[in-house]
Amino acid sequence: MDNFNFYSPTEFVFGRGRENEAGELVKKHGGSKVLVHFGGGSAVRSGLLDRVTASLDKAGVPYVSLGGVKPNPRDTLVYEGIELCRKENVDFILCVGGGSVIDSAKAIAAGVVYDGDFWDFYSGKAVIEKAVPVATVLTIAAAGSEGSGDTVVTQESTGLKRGAGSNALRPRFSIMNPELTCTLPAFQTACGAADIMAHVFERYFTNTQEVEITDRLCEAVLCTMVKEAPRVIADPNNYEARANIMWAGTVAHTNIVGVGRSQDWNSHNIEHELSGLYDVAHGAGLAVIMPSWMEFVMPHNPMRFAQMATRVFGCAMNFENPEATAMEGIRCFRRFLKELGLPINFAELGAKEEDIPVLVEKLGLGDGRTGGFVQLSSEDVAQIYRIAARATV
Amino acid sequence: MDNFNFYSPTEFVFGRGRENEAGELVKKHGGSKVLVHFGGGSAVRSGLLDRVTASLDKAGVPYVSLGGVKPNPRDTLVYEGIELCRKENVDFILCVGGGSVIDSAKAIAAGVVYDGDFWDFYSGKAVIEKAVPVATVLTIAAAGSEGSGDTVVTQESTGLKRGAGSNALRPRFSIMNPELTCTLPAFQTACGAADIMAHVFERYFTNTQEVEITDRLCEAVLCTMVKEAPRVIADPNNYEARANIMWAGTVAHTNIVGVGRSQDWNSHNIEHELSGLYDVAHGAGLAVIMPSWMEFVMPHNPMRFAQMATRVFGCAMNFENPEATAMEGIRCFRRFLKELGLPINFAELGAKEEDIPVLVEKLGLGDGRTGGFVQLSSEDVAQIYRIAARATV
Repeated sequence: MDNFNFYSPTEFVFGRGRENEAGELVKKHGGSKVLVHFGGGSAVRSGLLDRVTASLDKAGVPYVSLGGVKPNPRDTLVYEGIELCRKENVDFILCVGGGSVIDSAKAIAAGVVYDGDFWDFYSGKAVIEKAVPVATVLTIAAAGSEGSGDTVVTQESTGLKRGAGSNALRPRFSIMNPELTCTLPAFQTACGAADIMAHVFERYFTNTQEVEITDRLCEAVLCTMVKEAPRVIADPNNYEARANIMWAGTVAHTNIVGVGRSQDWNSHNIEHELSGLYDVAHGAGLAVIMPSWMEFVMPHNPMRFAQMATRVFGCAMNFENPEATAMEGIRCFRRFLKELGLPINFAELGAKEEDIPVLVEKLGLGDGRTGGFVQLSSEDVAQIYRIAARATV
Repeated sequence: MDNFNFYSPTEFVFGRGRENEAGELVKKHGGSKVLVHFGGGSAVRSGLLDRVTASLDKAGVPYVSLGGVKPNPRDTLVYEGIELCRKENVDFILCVGGGSVIDSAKAIAAGVVYDGDFWDFYSGKAVIEKAVPVATVLTIAAAGSEGSGDTVVTQESTGLKRGAGSNALRPRFSIMNPELTCTLPAFQTACGAADIMAHVFERYFTNTQEVEITDRLCEAVLCTMVKEAPRVIADPNNYEARANIMWAGTVAHTNIVGVGRSQDWNSHNIEHELSGLYDVAHGAGLAVIMPSWMEFVMPHNPMRFAQMATRVFGCAMNFENPEATAMEGIRCFRRFLKELGLPINFAELGAKEEDIPVLVEKLGLGDGRTGGFVQLSSEDVAQIYRIAARATV
């Protein structure tokens, strides 16, 4: 096991009706002037935003609002948010939404207390050392941003989608009411499930030996998703299944399932170019890329894929031919994604095979290689895109 | 899933050599005058205490020391620690040791800032709302106190062993170097393993339905222990196995494997009277009590025990007779404990069957019942002690 630090100081406030505690929680965590940050109409239409602001009013905490976050959140709104926070002396950002809203809020939080251009953090020019406190009211189980220090933002002028991270961005509290996710369209629900599973797989495929506890924790989240995701697609109002998925999504990304080991993250890197270029949902892009990446890298460690196949998808181990078990596990995963209603190839996603050179170019590896489970060259990435382009179940 | 709050703000600093960061970590977490609290000779003899105090010296953090914590930590030393902290204006307690040292430190931390008798917290007269910050350098994987807000102390004059808890007692940081546990005697190592598994089982046996994620996380820790505990008994210097067990011990008790569900804790309650009366190791007492408790309560929900048997111990499911699978799982657990070198009945523990009325009396249920998975009467508890007295594999 590699040395590690694990730090997840977020107070998770989970269950029915908990959004009504938002105001008191902001006060408890030291906020005195709040930016309420949100996305499109659903938080407004459902009355959620009203409940949250009523809770702030009741607690006597003043606030300003900034809506309009889009999926794959843009730098343009972040600049607007930073300006607003400075003008209004905001000292706490409460976001109401999913991963895009939270990631946008984190970018604002870091940018407000930084003298330069906030994009420096995303382009790798600067490291986030401090930020205005962020807290969340989560409306979709997917990104895990409610329990992580990570953020991904898209630069509108270039389409570049880049990430940054810092413990300073870990939310002070996250309110998680599974009921809020019951009205999500099936496709968004399925995209969230793919994202959650991808966060685990990025940590599961490691070159570190003998990290049984983290392996088993990864498998715990994956087995939960295999059981619960089809249940919410079949019955969107199943509270118990929604609750299991929502908490699984957080556990998947605080990094408790990833400590003590090397991680991969190439599927995310490769997918980011897809959702950057076509503006497709991140989870849908992952459904196309992840099994294709698995097929490509499986020969690097067939036994690890056989372990996934048997422990997560219940495949029988083929002791004479572990590769066959490994491949069966990958097929199970792709079938599972397809049955959730997700795309599994370029055509279903709305991507084009002839754009592969553009995607590879945007990833910017050049003659270099990525890190991770298998170090990939530009040609390797192109091959993964080609597998993804034509995948079937 | 029940509504819940989950809050585990401890910074875990894990791996080889990390104890040398103690001084800088104390400074980072705001300590300016430290009480170094420890137990008997092993931390001194091994040179660990010197490395920790050298790290404090290097960071320029002054400290006073208080050693002498015994297993099942006593109130008498807590009073001494409170007096010392007040006299020396201590604002941070750094403990070096295992669960007993940490629990003693937490009692001191709560007592220093309380006007009354600290025992009020343990007798249920008062609730802990604030405490001096505590941090740990862990030397044994067992109690999970390095990641919890819980503390258990024994009142020397009465032999009463009682617990208290508060988020204010959650350590600010915990340094966890698995190498430090390699010199532990096999028996103490095994006792720690039993304690870790018990912390999971207390949460696993629930009456809340459909909490798949927490079930799976529980099973992740249990499967890890089933694999790794025999390896460290066979090879005490196996770093990887030690590391897996050490982190499993923390995961078992931050409560991440217990959220959203009713819990039990009767095995702990019943065991506390054993270690209170005979001053035996807590983990040894649990090895005797826990499988006996399982036998007694199994008819309440045989399928839950069958789930444990198949998922944790790899038993084949007997679909015609789930109770048979359930009993086989309990037998597997008791055999597993025995093979680790732990006692499984009163004689092996050094307890006496004729003391059962005294044990039941001390538990103090009277005509009432405990809460938990199955609500137990005094007679139920007596029956569990009788099963435990004569258990065999």
